[in-house]
Amino acid sequence: MKTNSPDPAKLSLNTATTRGKWGLAQAIEGCARHGIRGISPWRDLLHAMGVAKAARAIRAHGLRVTGLCRGGMFPAPTPGGRRRAIADNLRAIDEAHALGAQCLVLVAGGLPARSRDIAAAREQVREGLAKILPHARRAGIPLALEPLHPMYAADRACVNTLAQALDLCDALDPERTGALGVAVDVYHVWWDPLLEAQIRRAGAKRLLAYHICDWLVPTTDLLLDRGMMGDGVIDLQRIRGWMEAANYRGFHEVEIFSAKNWWRRDPDVVLETCRARHQRFG
Amino acid sequence: MKTNSPDPAKLSLNTATTRGKWGLAQAIEGCARHGIRGISPWRDLLHAMGVAKAARAIRAHGLRVTGLCRGGMFPAPTPGGRRRAIADNLRAIDEAHALGAQCLVLVAGGLPARSRDIAAAREQVREGLAKILPHARRAGIPLALEPLHPMYAADRACVNTLAQALDLCDALDPERTGALGVAVDVYHVWWDPLLEAQIRRAGAKRLLAYHICDWLVPTTDLLLDRGMMGDGVIDLQRIRGWMEAANYRGFHEVEIFSAKNWWRRDPDVVLETCRARHQRFG
Repeated sequence: MKTNSPDPAKLSLNTATTRGKWGLAQAIEGCARHGIRGISPWRDLLHAMGVAKAARAIRAHGLRVTGLCRGGMFPAPTPGGRRRAIADNLRAIDEAHALGAQCLVLVAGGLPARSRDIAAAREQVREGLAKILPHARRAGIPLALEPLHPMYAADRACVNTLAQALDLCDALDPERTGALGVAVDVYHVWWDPLLEAQIRRAGAKRLLAYHICDWLVPTTDLLLDRGMMGDGVIDLQRIRGWMEAANYRGFHEVEIFSAKNWWRRDPDVVLETCRARHQRFG
Repeated sequence: MKTNSPDPAKLSLNTATTRGKWGLAQAIEGCARHGIRGISPWRDLLHAMGVAKAARAIRAHGLRVTGLCRGGMFPAPTPGGRRRAIADNLRAIDEAHALGAQCLVLVAGGLPARSRDIAAAREQVREGLAKILPHARRAGIPLALEPLHPMYAADRACVNTLAQALDLCDALDPERTGALGVAVDVYHVWWDPLLEAQIRRAGAKRLLAYHICDWLVPTTDLLLDRGMMGDGVIDLQRIRGWMEAANYRGFHEVEIFSAKNWWRRDPDVVLETCRARHQRFG
C-alpha cells in the first residue's frame, strides 16, 4: 500500500501521548524499549522527575530531545502577569538547554481574562517573543512557535496559522538565523489552504519541529479527542512530502491527546501502534 | 456603555436560533411580534411549512428574507452524488426566488466519505459553484458562500477562510457582478488575522450577509454550543465596524446553535434577548 514509508528512526514520542499512564521516566524507558529515538517531554512531567535526572536518563538511552513542551502563554491582563510569563519562559529555555533539546515549543496563549481584543493579545505575544529571544539565542535554544488550530484562539493560542507565525518570525528574526521558527503540528494546520505555500516559505531554517496525529470524524472534544495516525482524515504523507520538499530533515513527533481512547490503553501498545502507523500512514 | 448601537431595524432572526421549539410559522409570527424585521429560514423548516405558504406569511408580516439556509454541500464520492447535490442546489435557488430572499447561503461541504484529499474536495466545490451560478443569475438570487470555521473542514465545509471564499468569487465572477459573494458569520471568522483586510477586499458587492452570535469560553461542543451576543469573546462592534467601513448596509442575522441553553428556553425570551444584546453588544 505504501510506496514511500518514512524512516522509522525519525519517530519521536511526545509525552502527551502516554500521559494517561506514564510519567517521564517510564516514557524514556518505553522509547528505548520500542526503538523510538526521539522524545519530547512536557514540563510538568519533567519537573516531577527532576531536570537533571531526566537529562541523565535521556542521555543514558541515547535519545534525542526533539522539543520541550512548552513555553509561551504570553498574554495576561496585567503587566505583572506578563512579566511572570516571561520569567517562566526564561526558565523553560534553561530547562531546554539542560536537556539538550532541539527547540522549545511555544504556544502563544489566548485572550487575557475578560478581554475581547485579540489584536491586543497578539501584540502581547509579539512583545513576549521579543523579550525572550535574546536569552534563547544565548542558550542556543531555537524557539518553535506553534500555530494552534483556530478553535483554540480564545483560550490557548491567538497565533492560528502558519502564515501568522511566520510573519512573527520575519518581524523578530529577519535575518533568518534559525533562532526563531515554527512547529508544524498537522492537527492544527491540516485544513489550511495555504499550508503547502507556507511550509515552503518557512524553509529548513524555520521548520523546527513536525508533530503528527490525526483528525477524527466526528471529533467529540475540542481538546482531548485527537486520533492516531490513520484513524482520521489528515493526508499525512502529503504534508510530510511538503516538509521534505522544504528540506525539513527532523523527527516526526507523535502527539496525541486522547482522554477516552489512547490515554486509557497500555502505553506499550500505544507505542507499538505509533511505530506501525508511522510506517503505514506517516 | 455603548456609544454606537446598531440600528434595531437591522436585526434578523435565523431560524436556527429558535429551532429547539419553533417551526417556521411560529418564527415568522415571533419576529413580527418582537419587531424583528428580517428572517432567514432553514430549508427543512421551510419544507415542513410549505414554500408558498411561507412566502405568503412572510409577505403578510412585511419581513425581509435575509437569506435562505442553505445550499452547497457539493463534494461527494461519486459523480452521481455530485449531480444530486447540484440538483438540490437548483431547487434551493428556486425556493430562495419564491421567498424573495436576498441570497442563498452556501456551505461548501466537507470531505467525501473515505477521502483524505481536501484539495480535491475544494475543487469539487469550485465545480459545483460554477454549475449552479448561471441558474442563480437567471433567478436573480445572489449566492453567499459562507466560509466555515476550520474545525468543520472535514465534515461540513472545506472553505474555511474569507480569503479562500473570495478567491473562489474572483475565479467564478471576476466581473464582480454581485451574483456570487460571501456570508460573513462572526463565529467562523472572528479568529482570522486577515479578517479586516478580507472584509475590505470583499466590499459591498460581495458582502451578502452578516451573521452574529458569540464564541463561548469554554466551548463544550463543536457544533451546538454557540453563545448569545455578549456571552463570549467576539468583539462584535469591531467586526461590524469593518463591515460598515466596507459599505455593508444589510441585516445583522442572529444564528445561534445552542442545544443545551437557548434551544431549551422560551423562544419569546430568546427573541427579547436577541434584541437587547444586539443593541448592547452587536
